[in-house]
Amino acid sequence: MYYPKIVAGIDIGGTKTLIGLVDHSGSILVSQQFPTDIKDDPKTHIEKCIETLSNCMKQIGINDQSLYGIGVNVPGLADPNKGLLLHAPYSGWKNVPVKNNLQEKWPGIPIRIANDVNACALGELVFGKGKKFQNFLWVTISTGIGGGIIINRNIYEGEHFIAGEIGHLVVEWENGNLCGCGNSGCLEAHASGTAIAKMAEKEKLIPATAKNVAQLAYYGNKIALDIYRQAGEYIGRAFSYAANVLNPGAIIIGGGVSLSLDLLEPHIRNTFHSAVIDEKNKNIPILKTALGYEAGLIGAASLIYANE
Amino acid sequence: MYYPKIVAGIDIGGTKTLIGLVDHSGSILVSQQFPTDIKDDPKTHIEKCIETLSNCMKQIGINDQSLYGIGVNVPGLADPNKGLLLHAPYSGWKNVPVKNNLQEKWPGIPIRIANDVNACALGELVFGKGKKFQNFLWVTISTGIGGGIIINRNIYEGEHFIAGEIGHLVVEWENGNLCGCGNSGCLEAHASGTAIAKMAEKEKLIPATAKNVAQLAYYGNKIALDIYRQAGEYIGRAFSYAANVLNPGAIIIGGGVSLSLDLLEPHIRNTFHSAVIDEKNKNIPILKTALGYEAGLIGAASLIYANE
Repeated sequence: MYYPKIVAGIDIGGTKTLIGLVDHSGSILVSQQFPTDIKDDPKTHIEKCIETLSNCMKQIGINDQSLYGIGVNVPGLADPNKGLLLHAPYSGWKNVPVKNNLQEKWPGIPIRIANDVNACALGELVFGKGKKFQNFLWVTISTGIGGGIIINRNIYEGEHFIAGEIGHLVVEWENGNLCGCGNSGCLEAHASGTAIAKMAEKEKLIPATAKNVAQLAYYGNKIALDIYRQAGEYIGRAFSYAANVLNPGAIIIGGGVSLSLDLLEPHIRNTFHSAVIDEKNKNIPILKTALGYEAGLIGAASLIYANE
Repeated sequence: MYYPKIVAGIDIGGTKTLIGLVDHSGSILVSQQFPTDIKDDPKTHIEKCIETLSNCMKQIGINDQSLYGIGVNVPGLADPNKGLLLHAPYSGWKNVPVKNNLQEKWPGIPIRIANDVNACALGELVFGKGKKFQNFLWVTISTGIGGGIIINRNIYEGEHFIAGEIGHLVVEWENGNLCGCGNSGCLEAHASGTAIAKMAEKEKLIPATAKNVAQLAYYGNKIALDIYRQAGEYIGRAFSYAANVLNPGAIIIGGGVSLSLDLLEPHIRNTFHSAVIDEKNKNIPILKTALGYEAGLIGAASLIYANE
C-alpha cells in the first residue's frame, strides 16, 4: 500500500501562528491557529507550536513515523543553514533555535526554516502559478509590503540575505510619506493596507480599513476608487523598477490587499507600461496568488517539498 | 615547457571594434581597433574582424594552434546558445551568425558570444573587483546606460534575456526627459554622457560634452559641478532601486562617465543612503571598474575563461 508523504507547515506570523499538515499536492489536510503572543518567551511559543502540531496529527490520526518533514516560516530574518530565527522585528525575538527545539521532539526528520515572504514565493513555485516560470517576483501586500525573488527556480536571497525589499523602493521622491523604516516615499508608506487605511482616515471614510475602502470602491464610491487608483499607480512604479532590473517571468501577488487586485490592476498596468522597456517586459503577467489565505502555511510546507 | 593559454577577445561596439589577445591573468598582449562601419553588411564586418585578429596573432607570433578560444561581445541582444547576434539597434544588424562565421576560420575551438554589458560584468567577475562577491551589479555609464547582473557568480539574463535595464529605470516621474526608448524620465535621459552633454548645451558650456563638463567641474565651475550633482542624484535613485531589489555585494561602474566617478559619488551616495533599507545595503561599495578602457575586450575574453 502507498502512503503519500505528509509534511507539517508552521507559519509564525506577527499576530497569529498557523499550523497544519500539507500533502504532496499542496492540499491542507488539517490546520489550527493561535495568536502569536509577543509577550511569550520564544521557547514557550515553540512549545505551543509543538503542542498544536501534535494535536493536528492526532486529529487526522497520523503518528510521528508518518511525518516526513517540517517547514517553518518566520516574520523576520532567518538563517536557513543553522535553522535560526535571527530577528523578528515585531516581537523582538532574536537568535531563536527553532530547528533544534523542534528536532528534540521529532528527531531525524528534515526541518527547514525561512523568512515568510521567501517561503510564500517558494510555495507559489512548487504548488501555484510559479510552476511555469524560471524566474518570478512574489509580492505580499498586506499590513506591510514584502518581496521574494525566485531565480532559476530557487529563492534568491542576495549578498546579505536582504534581497526583495519591494516595500522600500522609493516611489515618491518629492514629499513622500514617512515610512516605518525611517526613509520617505517608500512603496509601503503609499500602498500597503496600512497606507490605504491612513488615506481613508484622512478622507473620513468609516471604518478606515483597506478592506472597507475596497468594499466602498466596489459600490462606486469615488473617494474610495481614487484611493485604490493612487495605491495602484505607486505599485506600478515599484513593479516597473523590479521588472526593468529582474525581467521576471511574472509578478505574483499575495496578502490581504491582493484580494482587491481587480481595483488596483488597471492602474498598476498603466503606470507599469509607461515605465518599462521592451514589449516582453511590458507584458509580464501580474497575477494573484493561487494559494489564497493559506499561502504562508503552504509556503512553509514547500520548504520541504522543494528540496526533494 | 608550459605555454599559457591565449584567448582572443572581439569587442564589437556601436562606433568602433576592438580586437586583441588576452592571457589568463586578464592582461592584453596586443590589440587593434577599427571603426564599426554600420553601412557594412554584417558579414563584411565579421571578415574585417577575422583579418584584424589574424594580424594581432602575427604581431606577437602565435599561430592558430595556440589560440585557445574566442569571446565576442556585441552591442545588442545575443543568443549565446546559437552564437547569434540577434539584434544590434544602432546598426540595425539582425540574426548575424557570428559564431559560425568565425568557426569557419578557426574550427574546433570554443567561441562564445554575449551582450557587451553582460560580458563586462563577467570580465569584472573573473579579472576585476567582482572576484570577492557572489552577486553584484555592473553598470556602464557612457553614451547610454546599461546594466549587467551577476548572481551566484554567473550572468543573470532574466526570463526573456532583458534583465539589467538600469538605464530605463524611471528616476523622474514628473516631467521627466524624453528617452530614446519612448518612455520619459529614464535614468539614461537624465544621467548618461548624452544627457550630461545636453545639459551643458542648455547652459551654453562649450564644447558641450560630458568630458568637458567634467573638466570644468574639476576647475570649480559651478554650473558644471551642478550638472554632475544632478546626474549623481539620479544615478543614486536608480542604484537604490537596484539595491533594494537585488541586495548586490557591490555596484561596479564602467564606461566613459565612470572616469568622473569622484564628481558623482558624493551625490550618488547621499541619495542612495536616503532610499535604501538596511545598513548592509546602505553601505554597499560603489566602485569604478578595475578593467579600465578595455573592459569590453577583457570581458569578451572572460566569456572563455569563465567557462573553464
